[in-house]
Amino acid sequence: VSVVDAPGSARAGAAAATGSARVVILGAGFAGLSACEALAAGADAAGLEIVIVDRHTYNTFQPLLYQVATAGLNPGDIAYPVRAFLRRHPSVSFRQGAVTGVDLARREVVFEGDGPPLAYDYLVIATGAMTNFFGVVGAREHSLAIYTMEDAIAVRDRVARSMERAATFGVSGGELTVVLVGGGPTGVEMAGTLAELRSLDLAMTYPGIRPDEARIVLVERQDHLLDGFQAKSASYALRALRRRGVEVRLSSAVMEVGPDHVVLEDGEKIACGTVVWSAGVTTGRLAERLDVAKVQGGRLEVTPALQLTGHPEVFVAGDVAGARREQGSSALVPQLAQPALQEGRHAARQLLRLRRGLPLEPFRYRDKGIMATIGRRAAVAELPGGLRLSGTPAWLAWLGLHLVFLLGFRNRVAVLLNWAWRYVWWRRGTRVIAGT
Amino acid sequence: VSVVDAPGSARAGAAAATGSARVVILGAGFAGLSACEALAAGADAAGLEIVIVDRHTYNTFQPLLYQVATAGLNPGDIAYPVRAFLRRHPSVSFRQGAVTGVDLARREVVFEGDGPPLAYDYLVIATGAMTNFFGVVGAREHSLAIYTMEDAIAVRDRVARSMERAATFGVSGGELTVVLVGGGPTGVEMAGTLAELRSLDLAMTYPGIRPDEARIVLVERQDHLLDGFQAKSASYALRALRRRGVEVRLSSAVMEVGPDHVVLEDGEKIACGTVVWSAGVTTGRLAERLDVAKVQGGRLEVTPALQLTGHPEVFVAGDVAGARREQGSSALVPQLAQPALQEGRHAARQLLRLRRGLPLEPFRYRDKGIMATIGRRAAVAELPGGLRLSGTPAWLAWLGLHLVFLLGFRNRVAVLLNWAWRYVWWRRGTRVIAGT
Repeated sequence: VSVVDAPGSARAGAAAATGSARVVILGAGFAGLSACEALAAGADAAGLEIVIVDRHTYNTFQPLLYQVATAGLNPGDIAYPVRAFLRRHPSVSFRQGAVTGVDLARREVVFEGDGPPLAYDYLVIATGAMTNFFGVVGAREHSLAIYTMEDAIAVRDRVARSMERAATFGVSGGELTVVLVGGGPTGVEMAGTLAELRSLDLAMTYPGIRPDEARIVLVERQDHLLDGFQAKSASYALRALRRRGVEVRLSSAVMEVGPDHVVLEDGEKIACGTVVWSAGVTTGRLAERLDVAKVQGGRLEVTPALQLTGHPEVFVAGDVAGARREQGSSALVPQLAQPALQEGRHAARQLLRLRRGLPLEPFRYRDKGIMATIGRRAAVAELPGGLRLSGTPAWLAWLGLHLVFLLGFRNRVAVLLNWAWRYVWWRRGTRVIAGT
Repeated sequence: VSVVDAPGSARAGAAAATGSARVVILGAGFAGLSACEALAAGADAAGLEIVIVDRHTYNTFQPLLYQVATAGLNPGDIAYPVRAFLRRHPSVSFRQGAVTGVDLARREVVFEGDGPPLAYDYLVIATGAMTNFFGVVGAREHSLAIYTMEDAIAVRDRVARSMERAATFGVSGGELTVVLVGGGPTGVEMAGTLAELRSLDLAMTYPGIRPDEARIVLVERQDHLLDGFQAKSASYALRALRRRGVEVRLSSAVMEVGPDHVVLEDGEKIACGTVVWSAGVTTGRLAERLDVAKVQGGRLEVTPALQLTGHPEVFVAGDVAGARREQGSSALVPQLAQPALQEGRHAARQLLRLRRGLPLEPFRYRDKGIMATIGRRAAVAELPGGLRLSGTPAWLAWLGLHLVFLLGFRNRVAVLLNWAWRYVWWRRGTRVIAGT
């Protein structure tokens, strides 16, 4: 097989000679890194060489992408270098590259102009998902996604640029209006943060812009926000957003997106400068190209142990995996950080069991709760055991959890400082426009 | 006149009616912001409306650009939002835009596709400089400058990418070699930081790369480093760099830059992956286009009060100004942060005096000292009164001064944290590659 070996290539050659095997992990998101961590723990005993592959050299803390999009955090604050993670795991190497396909028959990963294919004995697919524009006219061209770091930076720069232009040339139409499509956690968090920015920051930073010139419209297809949350949480979020001046349009859908407007289902045209699309995700390109069984949302069909159907040597984890909430149920686990972490760990453990000839165990999703934040001292949280929080307690829980989960000490401190600065002194710490 | 008014446009109209005047400041660097601050203090009394113009919305702390280039700091750490500065100065407005020219006869600033011209009564030109490639073959195409934030990010990304490629595909030639052209403070600081990274960080982050595969070559045309410093400082820097494994080539010049090599004066060809050009600056594009008298380095000729020769209503400050070290001398002030701050303040004060009909005062450069740092506990500093420091005392002085001068509290804390992390625990806090 044609192989390009990452650092430690001597090891790979030696490994092949002694009958050991190579695991390739595609994706350094939550699922990929969690699989990597669990695999690395048993790698030596199992004679495994691990290569993790990603197009970026960093892991993105996706739950806080909306903070980058609203200029509350710097990109570096929520990016964790894969190589810093690798330092703790000498059996793992990293290859930066864009994967265009997997040859399941030859057991090779194929790269886009980034060198020869990489052979594997075991594969973990954790490549995530892609924004789903549902075929809405103009949505792909004229709206901004919010799934990757690049997406978040693009949103931040678009909003900031329209502010700068308005400050110089005045507002003639809806160029300061932001339309958020999709009332899930991301849409709600974006709307709440933008509303807070408008009421606390706008007058100070752009004295020439009237707050009512910067409308925030949140469009949700269903008759409630935060689908998947309890009705009480959803209505709390609705009230909290409306109290902050967000125009929430329930039971409404965007039918068309233009360069300076959106058209709703009922024909209403809303002039706007920015459309942020957070209405859902679909399978990523790699999964799309794989000629294997798929389930809802294009997610890859997996066995209870999270193996790709028909390919026991391939495991799938994270947003790309069609893992079921419960065995026998048709409902899939939500595409969130928690399940991704759990699936990554589970896939890794089953891979180690497979290697040792042990019977595999089914994945069991443990719901650790869901939360969404609307603004300062306004959030909803649903914890296991039926505990439901809203307002300040939920916000504090959200704050603490996100800080604890943020990978890496340094990032944690920087985030804490940014937040302290913002919430204690009511100021924005970060306000830099640039591709930076 | 055709005018686009920034926020507070009502004020501008009113101002014109009451016989007040508009000052336009070109550039939000050290000189521009310092001029702005001094003008704002007297703006009301003098009936002045101030508009500051920059293509970016932030001020860059240029003395620490090399830290961004070596991934020690995030771009956001050394960027200070102009609008945060403006909050303290309600008489000032900001216009983001790329200035293509100044019509000195019509008293208008012309923008590149960014709306109609902006009329002025007084103008402060503080547009900085531009990297000078001295016409060396291939230098513009194949080397990276280090004067703007974009420059620094490009250097960081180039070095990181070559590391990633080497980690995956191995090192075949000099792709990890960095050639630094120019042994001034920037070249010395870059070389020292890269050497420190190599000895402290490389083995941990890229276990497959041997430190000797990542050569650091510093080429200086003169027979000493740090021109402008005393001989003792220069030789200290030379020893400190060589002790850290930097290959310093004195009395040598780069004659040609190729995509993967440089050629020195004596014919030696050095294979390399990155060339950083810090050999000097020349006039910026705006100054180049102005049909006025120039002095050395294309800097604009100014009167002792820092007025543009022949245009008493136009003041010049910072790297673009040909201000003299002493009146009657032909030596110009160095193109550094300190003189820029002093010139900006002086230009503003003279503008206010001109407005009041008072006689103008000549600019007097107060040398507050110069410093350069080589690495941890290794720096040189030359303070007023002949005090010369090197080693740990100089390094501590450098550290303290840069922290104190960094604009904005938040930035200061973030920088402090990054440094503490790095220097106390010998780790790199920041290691994110991306346009981020």
